[in-house]
Amino acid sequence: MSDVPAVKAALKSQAIETPSWAYGNSGTRFKVFAQPGVPRTPQEKLDDAAQVHAFTGVAPTVALHIPWDKVDDYAALAKYAQERGLKLGAINSNVFQDDDYKLGSVTHPDPAVRRKAVDHLLECVDIMDATGSRDLKLWFSDGTNYPGQDDIAARQDRLAEALSTVYDRLGDDQRMLLEYKFFEPAFYTTDVPDWGTAYAHCLKLGPKAQVCVDTGHHAPGTNIEFIVALLLREKKLGAFDFNSRFYADDDLMVGAADPFQLFRIMYEVIRGGGLTPDIAFMLDQCHNIEPKIPAIIRSVMNVQEATAKALLVDRDALATAQRSGDVLGANAALMDAYNTDVRPLLAEVREELGIDPDPMAAYRASGWADRIVAERVGGEQAGWGA
Amino acid sequence: MSDVPAVKAALKSQAIETPSWAYGNSGTRFKVFAQPGVPRTPQEKLDDAAQVHAFTGVAPTVALHIPWDKVDDYAALAKYAQERGLKLGAINSNVFQDDDYKLGSVTHPDPAVRRKAVDHLLECVDIMDATGSRDLKLWFSDGTNYPGQDDIAARQDRLAEALSTVYDRLGDDQRMLLEYKFFEPAFYTTDVPDWGTAYAHCLKLGPKAQVCVDTGHHAPGTNIEFIVALLLREKKLGAFDFNSRFYADDDLMVGAADPFQLFRIMYEVIRGGGLTPDIAFMLDQCHNIEPKIPAIIRSVMNVQEATAKALLVDRDALATAQRSGDVLGANAALMDAYNTDVRPLLAEVREELGIDPDPMAAYRASGWADRIVAERVGGEQAGWGA
Amino acid sequence: MSDVPAVKAALKSQAIETPSWAYGNSGTRFKVFAQPGVPRTPQEKLDDAAQVHAFTGVAPTVALHIPWDKVDDYAALAKYAQERGLKLGAINSNVFQDDDYKLGSVTHPDPAVRRKAVDHLLECVDIMDATGSRDLKLWFSDGTNYPGQDDIAARQDRLAEALSTVYDRLGDDQRMLLEYKFFEPAFYTTDVPDWGTAYAHCLKLGPKAQVCVDTGHHAPGTNIEFIVALLLREKKLGAFDFNSRFYADDDLMVGAADPFQLFRIMYEVIRGGGLTPDIAFMLDQCHNIEPKIPAIIRSVMNVQEATAKALLVDRDALATAQRSGDVLGANAALMDAYNTDVRPLLAEVREELGIDPDPMAAYRASGWADRIVAERVGGEQAGWGA
Amino acid sequence: MSDVPAVKAALKSQAIETPSWAYGNSGTRFKVFAQPGVPRTPQEKLDDAAQVHAFTGVAPTVALHIPWDKVDDYAALAKYAQERGLKLGAINSNVFQDDDYKLGSVTHPDPAVRRKAVDHLLECVDIMDATGSRDLKLWFSDGTNYPGQDDIAARQDRLAEALSTVYDRLGDDQRMLLEYKFFEPAFYTTDVPDWGTAYAHCLKLGPKAQVCVDTGHHAPGTNIEFIVALLLREKKLGAFDFNSRFYADDDLMVGAADPFQLFRIMYEVIRGGGLTPDIAFMLDQCHNIEPKIPAIIRSVMNVQEATAKALLVDRDALATAQRSGDVLGANAALMDAYNTDVRPLLAEVREELGIDPDPMAAYRASGWADRIVAERVGGEQAGWGA
Repeated sequence: MSDVPAVKAALKSQAIETPSWAYGNSGTRFKVFAQPGVPRTPQEKLDDAAQVHAFTGVAPTVALHIPWDKVDDYAALAKYAQERGLKLGAINSNVFQDDDYKLGSVTHPDPAVRRKAVDHLLECVDIMDATGSRDLKLWFSDGTNYPGQDDIAARQDRLAEALSTVYDRLGDDQRMLLEYKFFEPAFYTTDVPDWGTAYAHCLKLGPKAQVCVDTGHHAPGTNIEFIVALLLREKKLGAFDFNSRFYADDDLMVGAADPFQLFRIMYEVIRGGGLTPDIAFMLDQCHNIEPKIPAIIRSVMNVQEATAKALLVDRDALATAQRSGDVLGANAALMDAYNTDVRPLLAEVREELGIDPDPMAAYRASGWADRIVAERVGGEQAGWGA
Repeated sequence: MSDVPAVKAALKSQAIETPSWAYGNSGTRFKVFAQPGVPRTPQEKLDDAAQVHAFTGVAPTVALHIPWDKVDDYAALAKYAQERGLKLGAINSNVFQDDDYKLGSVTHPDPAVRRKAVDHLLECVDIMDATGSRDLKLWFSDGTNYPGQDDIAARQDRLAEALSTVYDRLGDDQRMLLEYKFFEPAFYTTDVPDWGTAYAHCLKLGPKAQVCVDTGHHAPGTNIEFIVALLLREKKLGAFDFNSRFYADDDLMVGAADPFQLFRIMYEVIRGGGLTPDIAFMLDQCHNIEPKIPAIIRSVMNVQEATAKALLVDRDALATAQRSGDVLGANAALMDAYNTDVRPLLAEVREELGIDPDPMAAYRASGWADRIVAERVGGEQAGWGA
Repeated sequence: MSDVPAVKAALKSQAIETPSWAYGNSGTRFKVFAQPGVPRTPQEKLDDAAQVHAFTGVAPTVALHIPWDKVDDYAALAKYAQERGLKLGAINSNVFQDDDYKLGSVTHPDPAVRRKAVDHLLECVDIMDATGSRDLKLWFSDGTNYPGQDDIAARQDRLAEALSTVYDRLGDDQRMLLEYKFFEPAFYTTDVPDWGTAYAHCLKLGPKAQVCVDTGHHAPGTNIEFIVALLLREKKLGAFDFNSRFYADDDLMVGAADPFQLFRIMYEVIRGGGLTPDIAFMLDQCHNIEPKIPAIIRSVMNVQEATAKALLVDRDALATAQRSGDVLGANAALMDAYNTDVRPLLAEVREELGIDPDPMAAYRASGWADRIVAERVGGEQAGWGA
Repeated sequence: MSDVPAVKAALKSQAIETPSWAYGNSGTRFKVFAQPGVPRTPQEKLDDAAQVHAFTGVAPTVALHIPWDKVDDYAALAKYAQERGLKLGAINSNVFQDDDYKLGSVTHPDPAVRRKAVDHLLECVDIMDATGSRDLKLWFSDGTNYPGQDDIAARQDRLAEALSTVYDRLGDDQRMLLEYKFFEPAFYTTDVPDWGTAYAHCLKLGPKAQVCVDTGHHAPGTNIEFIVALLLREKKLGAFDFNSRFYADDDLMVGAADPFQLFRIMYEVIRGGGLTPDIAFMLDQCHNIEPKIPAIIRSVMNVQEATAKALLVDRDALATAQRSGDVLGANAALMDAYNTDVRPLLAEVREELGIDPDPMAAYRASGWADRIVAERVGGEQAGWGA
């Protein structure tokens, strides 16, 4: 697509959802390093998210995590968001932090625990009704640590039953996004470890069940863009959780570890017609040592840059080379777009959107970072456990 | 199952298919080390396979590879096998060694190459008609080496079309087994890289299309027994290609690299009701530096030992521990079977089958190894390229 | 070694050090599941460790972790241990949980932070003087999360300087054990990521600096027994941290994920003359979902079983097969020992040691588990952060 | 380094050695796809290499592989090269393709085989004397496929002895480069599997023994630039074998799989003062499906682009951010250089060198590809086995 106006239009209409929890503290099992100025309430998270949107122009929605973002009045929270130019996005369930879930939630051997977990998922749909959210994101930490610990197939049966119950509760315009993860925190089996398992369940559930691809949740060496192409072809790709990693699920800023991979993923998204609101493009990452808001701004920009490069691929030249078996020519057509410096183009896009062409500098200049450090004193900072 | 007679009965009825090509020379891209006495014809491969069956009692069928085992008269070959106590097993297609297949076979951009590949697959079904084989095993080396080289989704379309054509040609009692492989010889994308892709295609094709799990074809760290449990639950597990590896797809003797993993796989097979003739248990491995026939005998024995241990799991104790959330107790129930020395039990099983309790020693004593070295002089030894 | 009395003698003299922190709570970044009865003080940890030693007979020492096990009077703590049949073992430093260490400890860009970290290490040597411990175990979480974050080579310079300072402080009978780790909690570079880095530093420091091999700290597919053989040949293997894992550094019970690997490691230890007090055999693992004490007993037993099998290898037969290039014969010599059920032999060893042949059953029958749940009420349970 | 003239000067003086074998046929164990026009003699390989140098300006030397490039008169071959503007580079030994080496070469249990292997290595030094080559590159395929197959430590002893013999034969201006490889073709142990093993041997041998880092020879996830920084700090980095891969050792074009990684490696080279003739920058890769000469030109260009970006890093800004613990600022300083499109700069460099700014187009236009297809008819094409 060498049609620059069309590229710009696509970039302007892009929407990247930021996760409320990325504004709070996070860390590793070894240590959570608290940062000054971190939000203490869902409202303060939205305040920070509003900054990200203000400076990037393409982050209009915020994903919530229940119970971390539990409030008494979700309609009020939605209004709070709206007043800051935001909308509430996907509702993320949490069935991994209660003591009852030590051996599983929806796949637990004990039906009482399963019921409790399903009740939480249903409660999340209630919240979606209140917030107007379209998507319920389901990630299950369920699995086992030792061979023999539980019955692999029986856990699948329990999973299928729980998903079916929740599916039936979804409204007409609501969806469930089933996320898979290679491992962690389960260390032997994970009940939804790969795209194939998520796909098989979603297929049986029906069109409102879609797969969520978290870019950090694969075995070493897995070709993620292949999975993206496949799920798009099967009409079963519902969302991305973006982040990056060098090793396991390190949750680094998206594009930080392998920007070429992110570009290839975005190319397949565009090739498969996936750059539409039907696919949710969400960040899901931690900022353990770097400041939260600028890290999220940088992440949004990284997605934009990969998207811009992918949009610039000369698809006619590529198709011609592919058809003629010109291996080097086809590779060169792709690399030509990747090697382009798209930062000037994105600066123009931002100016046309009426925002500063340099979001990082503009955020630094805004004084917001100092202000939240000064103002957010006392109380309990938000974090994974809060 | 602590019912020893039942365990023995299961072990006696076990059937492990050996691959004709494992009797020939093989190696790496660096070197194929030829071995004296290696077969020069499909008939000589069957002669060797008959030795394996004679000394193990549980290797009654032999998989063929076309064109490596091409003969003029397949009915005569089937009769040759029968006279040696064998039957011909799965027909393995080969669409990776013709110069036309440099950029793919059934997924090649050029329809003429695709047609040639499909014609070969249909020819394999013709051969199945002649040999009485039930299973067509499909492994495609198809894929790309460089980003951009070809269109990922378009290749899936071509693959689906080819599979559908072949599926329609299958007889009532015939099946196709679709094998997946993480990588090699394609080094960027592989068109059937994981169980999910194979499953998605087989699901659309129908009940005669089943997935073949090759134990060496996964990303590092993949939990293979989980996939086995899942495919059995979905009734889409058709076959195993057994081998083992420490790194990529090293094709070492099954059970040599991780005997505990093989045990866990066999446990899931038994747990899922898969120890039946509906699942084909085949070896698919190379013996690059070790002598072929004893290596295959050892491999068959390794599968037997894993099966015996898996049959010995006290499933009542296991289920009780699992239900009560007794992590260590459940693990111990599994490990107790694994830690059992099943060699005496298998010696008894062999004696009851009327064969020597020590297949390796009996083979060594038989003089066959010396005989084939002496007799098989001249001609061209069989190998991957032959 | 088919000399059964010698095998038994070796097994009786084996000493496996258990880590104080494994008796406390641990978990993942997602959740720490607290367990009833978990110790609240270093003394209670020693009480539990005494149980492990009482029932296994081969766990006479306990590693401490500073500051988690900080007490006012280390001599008194040593006496407390002695009264329970134990000795204090390695002192483990902790320079990863203070807020100052967010960007590193001994490799931090700021010299003040480095000095603080070195001071802690020197304090640990002071504690060794008081406890009579021989070994200072050094694990550094130091590293970076993002390319460019810090200068890789400069961090090595800082590391070398810190190690040298601590080395100079060691007494004549004291050693430092330098542990390496592939990744986590640093997610881009780790300052001591592999055995080569640890080896290079220890070589320059001198004979009192030795490498500690943690079995969970390697890249996927790494051949750990090769590293063991190499370090023994170089006289630079000082200790093991035993645990196991299927994926990253999962810290499962040693021998749980790959018992064959543990056997191969113990074979190389014995082959290289390493089954002596000069090598410290320590557990370093977490018990996130299983009860602590029985899990540690099981772990000790797993090491014993691997050791027993390794001792049973017929090294003459092995050497003969190796010399003659008999690949299958050599492999069979090793596997013959591995496939042996050594549990009866170990039961005998225990009876000769005057303890119950079944440590797990004896512990269960002892009532200790119930007692600590009843008695250890109130206070703060020990854990990684405590 | 924002000093553009200095950047250009560095780029002009860069020298990338191409390997004679990359001009010949290569493939996988499944198939070698022959290409028309492939050289049949060492001289024809030099003819092709001269094209690469003519169009890139920075590939003045060619590595030889013995016996693949065996000739009667090496001085004449050197003169042949010189007449085409080339010099002969490193001599690569081959002790993996003779039938005697099935179980090893310099580490083989049989001293006669070891002697044969060492004799070949000494012969290679003789050839170096004749060609004027500085570097002997040693890669050993030695290892084992099965646990127990041979004694790990004894093989190290044999390796040390062989290396020592060859080291003693080196002339004053000659070096040996010891290459390590994670696995393949050995599938259980490899005798030089990692940088640590190569380093330990080189350290004992002396200053003329240096480590060669092949970018495709590491475990999954290994941080290669860390190793580069370490070896430079230790003054033990002698050379690179450049290539890239997504999975095992796929030998794709350098920079094709992960251009960001190549940039990080080149940054560490420059940071450590390694962009000098003391470090040999060599390609070692296969072109299985793409045409050889353009693939090598593209590879040279990929190294140039990574080098250019690494030279453009603003090291003052980077150091300032690193010193102040500004994680995002330091990362941004690095990424700013990486995101720069350096193709215009390299076009200028080429024009200043007096060559075409677009090497790929210029090669295509030259007619060389058609000419070699037309002229190189008959004879035996060069390849790994030839």
